[in-house]
Amino acid sequence: MTTPTTPMPYDRSLTHEIAARVLAAAVAEAGRNGWPMSIAIVDTAADLVAFARMDDAQTGSIDAAHAKARTAALYKRPSKVFEDAVTAGGQGLRLLGMPNLCPVEGGWPIVRDGRVLGAIGVSGMRADQDTVVANAGLAAL
Amino acid sequence: MTTPTTPMPYDRSLTHEIAARVLAAAVAEAGRNGWPMSIAIVDTAADLVAFARMDDAQTGSIDAAHAKARTAALYKRPSKVFEDAVTAGGQGLRLLGMPNLCPVEGGWPIVRDGRVLGAIGVSGMRADQDTVVANAGLAAL
Amino acid sequence: MTTPTTPMPYDRSLTHEIAARVLAAAVAEAGRNGWPMSIAIVDTAADLVAFARMDDAQTGSIDAAHAKARTAALYKRPSKVFEDAVTAGGQGLRLLGMPNLCPVEGGWPIVRDGRVLGAIGVSGMRADQDTVVANAGLAAL
Amino acid sequence: MTTPTTPMPYDRSLTHEIAARVLAAAVAEAGRNGWPMSIAIVDTAADLVAFARMDDAQTGSIDAAHAKARTAALYKRPSKVFEDAVTAGGQGLRLLGMPNLCPVEGGWPIVRDGRVLGAIGVSGMRADQDTVVANAGLAAL
Repeated sequence: MTTPTTPMPYDRSLTHEIAARVLAAAVAEAGRNGWPMSIAIVDTAADLVAFARMDDAQTGSIDAAHAKARTAALYKRPSKVFEDAVTAGGQGLRLLGMPNLCPVEGGWPIVRDGRVLGAIGVSGMRADQDTVVANAGLAAL
Repeated sequence: MTTPTTPMPYDRSLTHEIAARVLAAAVAEAGRNGWPMSIAIVDTAADLVAFARMDDAQTGSIDAAHAKARTAALYKRPSKVFEDAVTAGGQGLRLLGMPNLCPVEGGWPIVRDGRVLGAIGVSGMRADQDTVVANAGLAAL
Repeated sequence: MTTPTTPMPYDRSLTHEIAARVLAAAVAEAGRNGWPMSIAIVDTAADLVAFARMDDAQTGSIDAAHAKARTAALYKRPSKVFEDAVTAGGQGLRLLGMPNLCPVEGGWPIVRDGRVLGAIGVSGMRADQDTVVANAGLAAL
Repeated sequence: MTTPTTPMPYDRSLTHEIAARVLAAAVAEAGRNGWPMSIAIVDTAADLVAFARMDDAQTGSIDAAHAKARTAALYKRPSKVFEDAVTAGGQGLRLLGMPNLCPVEGGWPIVRDGRVLGAIGVSGMRADQDTVVANAGLAAL
């Protein structure tokens, strides 16, 4: 697992207002595309601040969205970093044995002024579509 | 534990739109009162559909709100029914050993046309205040 | 469960320096009394910041100390408040069914300027002795 | 998984004094390098004896440090041995299915006179940096 030489610090001021705004933007983007998804917003401890499951989202997406958000918040990195490492095989496979780490694209830190406030996790469609929705949420930050 | 002789059937049509509307009304009521709370909306399987944690809500309210909603959805009754039974003592104490049952006021079924669609759970203040907020949410149904 | 009408806000600035200082003072007090204990310091999410188990502390004290600290941090109150409610019986018994709530004396919020930074939990001796040690820790704040 | 033909015996005399000394040396080394880390010291049952989380350590490091220490204590080997086996692929991949085994560098047995007293686990930076800090702790033994 590659850790930045200067890890970003945390900022523990993720408000409900911010979380609700990011969530609404993500839900709107998913709706525009007709993608049924679950979307989780968590703080720096990976505790839930806001959550929405859209109609007909696969039930597994509930925990998957939370797991991706947890990963990004707890390790201060997009979950895709871990997906890529696992995909590369070899040493990267060790990540499958790390606690609280879901190595699947769709979890992204919520960053402001170089500090991690928490994370968004999206699940329900293809991983790149999950990321489109997460980015739409982050753009509302 | 009092079970209705004719238990209400489930209706699995709790949409994200309904859940978001109930949640928004509950959050607004809590905000008006200056009460920091967590509010969870779940379906008939007690799986999360919508969730919000307000600023400075005690961290314990996250799981507590979900636990109260779970209780109301899984057992088709307000969680206060179980609180009253535990309070009465004697046979009611057995409820403390029931799975997925939180015997604390604040979880209420979401009912439409005599059918249970899911539940709302509220935590963060006194139990009667939790109920005020839950009722404000249900009134938006 | 009685919640203060104006719940204390959280302050998420519990540093390692503070936690280590509180822990050292508590360990010193326990040592002076010859009491083998476990002592946990947690943040507002109940995640561990510092921990010490003294020689011959009963093994159960590890999780018990953490559970008491978790209770005080997540519910912003001394765990003794919940112990007293359970002891009174009746409605208080419902607390035995609350998630993440250990209703046993020994968990105390770490409060500064009217804000909850986290909590200390102590286990290993009689509850009142646990509190003596917790208070010694808090006095070093 | 390579198992020594003559596995080291356990020695259950890891005192709080030793654990605190090892922990302090590790924290000092991490501090000198400006590395925000979590550091866990466990006994032969992988139960926590001492723990510290430094400011801005990624939240995931709490459980990761414990998991690495647990691995080293429960299996009497550095967790890197398992990382190397997983990296080699083939039969080594089976380790991902072992209970209580985190195959990631950073967990090291605390050994004295050929006996395992417990383990130290470090998490928060690159794996080789985690090891630098663990070694600084062990040097204080």
